[in-house]
Amino acid sequence: MIIDIHGHYTTEPQALQLFRDKQLAGLADPARKPGSTDLGISDAVLVKSVEPQLKFQKERGSDLTIFSPRASGMAHHVGTEAIGLQWATVSNDLIHRICALLPENFVGVGQLPQFPGVSPKNCIPELERIVTKLGFVGVNLNPDPSGGWWKDPPLTDKFWYPIYEKLCELEVPAMIHVSSSCNPNFHATGAHYINGDTTAFMQLLQGNLFKDFPNLKFVIPHGGGAVPFHWGRYRGLAQDMKKPLLADHLMKNVFFDTCVYHLPGIELLTKVISPDNILFASEMVGAVKGIDPETGHYFDDTKRYLDQLKDLSAESRHKIFEGNARRVYPRLDTLLKKRGHPAKKA
Amino acid sequence: MIIDIHGHYTTEPQALQLFRDKQLAGLADPARKPGSTDLGISDAVLVKSVEPQLKFQKERGSDLTIFSPRASGMAHHVGTEAIGLQWATVSNDLIHRICALLPENFVGVGQLPQFPGVSPKNCIPELERIVTKLGFVGVNLNPDPSGGWWKDPPLTDKFWYPIYEKLCELEVPAMIHVSSSCNPNFHATGAHYINGDTTAFMQLLQGNLFKDFPNLKFVIPHGGGAVPFHWGRYRGLAQDMKKPLLADHLMKNVFFDTCVYHLPGIELLTKVISPDNILFASEMVGAVKGIDPETGHYFDDTKRYLDQLKDLSAESRHKIFEGNARRVYPRLDTLLKKRGHPAKKA
Repeated sequence: MIIDIHGHYTTEPQALQLFRDKQLAGLADPARKPGSTDLGISDAVLVKSVEPQLKFQKERGSDLTIFSPRASGMAHHVGTEAIGLQWATVSNDLIHRICALLPENFVGVGQLPQFPGVSPKNCIPELERIVTKLGFVGVNLNPDPSGGWWKDPPLTDKFWYPIYEKLCELEVPAMIHVSSSCNPNFHATGAHYINGDTTAFMQLLQGNLFKDFPNLKFVIPHGGGAVPFHWGRYRGLAQDMKKPLLADHLMKNVFFDTCVYHLPGIELLTKVISPDNILFASEMVGAVKGIDPETGHYFDDTKRYLDQLKDLSAESRHKIFEGNARRVYPRLDTLLKKRGHPAKKA
Repeated sequence: MIIDIHGHYTTEPQALQLFRDKQLAGLADPARKPGSTDLGISDAVLVKSVEPQLKFQKERGSDLTIFSPRASGMAHHVGTEAIGLQWATVSNDLIHRICALLPENFVGVGQLPQFPGVSPKNCIPELERIVTKLGFVGVNLNPDPSGGWWKDPPLTDKFWYPIYEKLCELEVPAMIHVSSSCNPNFHATGAHYINGDTTAFMQLLQGNLFKDFPNLKFVIPHGGGAVPFHWGRYRGLAQDMKKPLLADHLMKNVFFDTCVYHLPGIELLTKVISPDNILFASEMVGAVKGIDPETGHYFDDTKRYLDQLKDLSAESRHKIFEGNARRVYPRLDTLLKKRGHPAKKA
């Protein structure tokens, strides 16, 4: 089984965007608020909207996508906390419906109603709802709810602890994923995303978070940002700071995905990062939509890069494509077992 | 000849730090201002202070270091514009004295008196002074003078044009190098530096700066941040934005150094980036000070990684170690020719 752990709902029906417009228009003129959170989207429209993803799953040979609302659409910095909660609820409900309609293809991951300067504790009710009621197996956690201004405390700060406690209790991992940037210095997918990944890893390196939360699991997407390319720098910084080896300090709790859009990048990733810490992902249909003129294939067809790695053992391959996902997302494993997909013995 | 284009004066005599303390203490109590900009540092003390660099040059086999004030020490966000100007002047003067004392080992690159929110136009007098009076061959340009808050406009904004005009007129390149971070989210060398590199590259990708300044040259240090690791992403984003191929859009003007502290990173860098765009550098004695337990050698001994690349032709090697530096820093080339080091024919 090939599990793509990083897909966002980037092909939403227009009705969702119209709802969002009404929500935000309502800030200026309450008369324009949406009358209802019922978007009037039929099941048929929902299924139709994910045809691009289904087509790519089939063509590229993946089975299941861990699917969450559009990352840039979370926009935690926009509006008010109440509006953000409504937006998260509506967005999560749509993901839930898609997962219910196409359970073989999609499993849900949620958006939290974070708001800059507000304790992540306030996200706990929605986190509990999506996991216990909607059956989601993980959640996206934005390390910068201010959207490019980085005004909230680092991830190792006690500010974040309430949400970590709940994540551990529920046995769900968080993907550390920023949203859009309202700082003109940071292009979203070209700078803010990658910087967010690098920043999160370095915060974790500086701290000792996993001493307090030994069971907490973070996925850092986009191949871990700059981290694998600068693996020597991070090993060296940890050493200068008298931290344990990264394998012990962080890599029991931190995982990178394979959203790196060329073969040399994937080669590096698998060379320096243990196969126990790499999870297959493509973020399709996502950040980079085109076909690479150098290969004639889609940039984000990351399975092709992995398939070209001759030195990757069958065991490592299994970990990257399925085993690690089932270990990092234990609720996914439970779900798959229930559906008759036993986990392979390591 | 082996030219290391990225060294900072990180071994300054204590007198420089005492001067800085007095400068900043003077903000709170004018009576504590330094009485003079004469630091009372003898030539012997200066020469002694760079013994670590001279030792590493000899041991590792590099000849000449392009040397600038400590990057994190620039701290453009601290104090006032006037204090920053005094600080830049004093810091540049020390570099100049070292380069005059040890001309075979060091060539100067300067610090600009940037200040958040203030036009870089104000840096022109100091830029002219260090190039025409002190013989510096380049300058460090901080894309985020606010020190981790990213409050100034992107590098493609007209805000920056006056300094670009002067850089072109003087024929000196700028290394795009942030300073320290006062945002607790960003560790300086582990996040802010690397994010600064990635951010700068993406800003340039989004814009068309080199149409306005075809002769402007930027060095993006630390191997270009995350860029080579995500080279497919950047090629794909450029394509999605209908920009020319990166080779034409940016890579006649943008260069990466080799401050990547492990062999797989250097392998990737030289695999995806043309040898015409890579300049040898180590940033010694700098960000990562220790010895890699996996190799028994210093993390920042980047020459060793390059020496291990079997597929690198003699021609590419010459470009990376000397040729590109002489091309990107034309005033360095002039200086070397005057000293009897002719440029090798390509």
